[in-house]
Amino acid sequence: MTDFAHLRHKPPTTLAEPRPLVVACAPLRSNVNLSRIVRAAGCCGVARVIACGAAKVISKIARDGADQVEVEVHRTLPPVLRELRQEGYAIVALEQTTGSESLYDFRFDRRTVLVVGNERTGLTEEELRQVDRAVEIPVYGLPFSHNVATATAIAMYDYCRQFPTG
Amino acid sequence: MTDFAHLRHKPPTTLAEPRPLVVACAPLRSNVNLSRIVRAAGCCGVARVIACGAAKVISKIARDGADQVEVEVHRTLPPVLRELRQEGYAIVALEQTTGSESLYDFRFDRRTVLVVGNERTGLTEEELRQVDRAVEIPVYGLPFSHNVATATAIAMYDYCRQFPTG
Repeated sequence: MTDFAHLRHKPPTTLAEPRPLVVACAPLRSNVNLSRIVRAAGCCGVARVIACGAAKVISKIARDGADQVEVEVHRTLPPVLRELRQEGYAIVALEQTTGSESLYDFRFDRRTVLVVGNERTGLTEEELRQVDRAVEIPVYGLPFSHNVATATAIAMYDYCRQFPTG
Repeated sequence: MTDFAHLRHKPPTTLAEPRPLVVACAPLRSNVNLSRIVRAAGCCGVARVIACGAAKVISKIARDGADQVEVEVHRTLPPVLRELRQEGYAIVALEQTTGSESLYDFRFDRRTVLVVGNERTGLTEEELRQVDRAVEIPVYGLPFSHNVATATAIAMYDYCRQFPTG
């Protein structure tokens, strides 16, 4: 056994350049989930989250992510996804769909918009029409799908793993 | 653009054998976090979660994970960690400590107990004394640490990635 001493808040990893990853959320049911996404985005060095509808970040949950991350609220997702594609972003749905690729094998483009769907209904047909690729997290047992904020954090983690210094 | 059609609950990946991964939680402040861990454990095919103290799974949050996953409640963690080591498990703390390794490079043993700490205080010295290795998730920005349930899900995801069929 080695001796381990708990460190509260080790210094973070430094990014060589800002992460060009954007997380775009369809209208979510729960501002708790949005706020958890914002906290995880802060930890991942993701500077921009797009939210829709009556989105409101709860700072008790998002913690310092609430200040660290710019949360842009739009009415709906498709117009902003179209714009981001024109700016050269790959638009990637995090969704169990026909044609979705396993996150285990998925190579992200650096400039990516990760699009996440509603807790109950996932991404609508109209939202999926704006998407270039879809990625899914393999699941092995019930309830067969992760919570939306958990899934988003896992996908952001894998993106960071692929671009460990930005 | 490809056409993607949303699938509610695609069939899960089949495991060649049950996952010998155990998640052991120190006494947590929040049964919401415990329940989120149980949901993610269900999705990852993890059959056994150890909890401490006044642990109670909220089935609305854990969803079918509440039935899928056996949650064993103990008074404290150290005795059960000692037993599990004797059964041949590697005891791995998910913690920012001196000597913790990056999850990016961490190779899990198949038979692993992933030990997660309290939301505020992390793992105690006494708990860390039972640990063989420590792993941490690199962070890049504020709040510099993931929520405990988010971190646990990320670590379980990486374990599954390393043992994609069990």
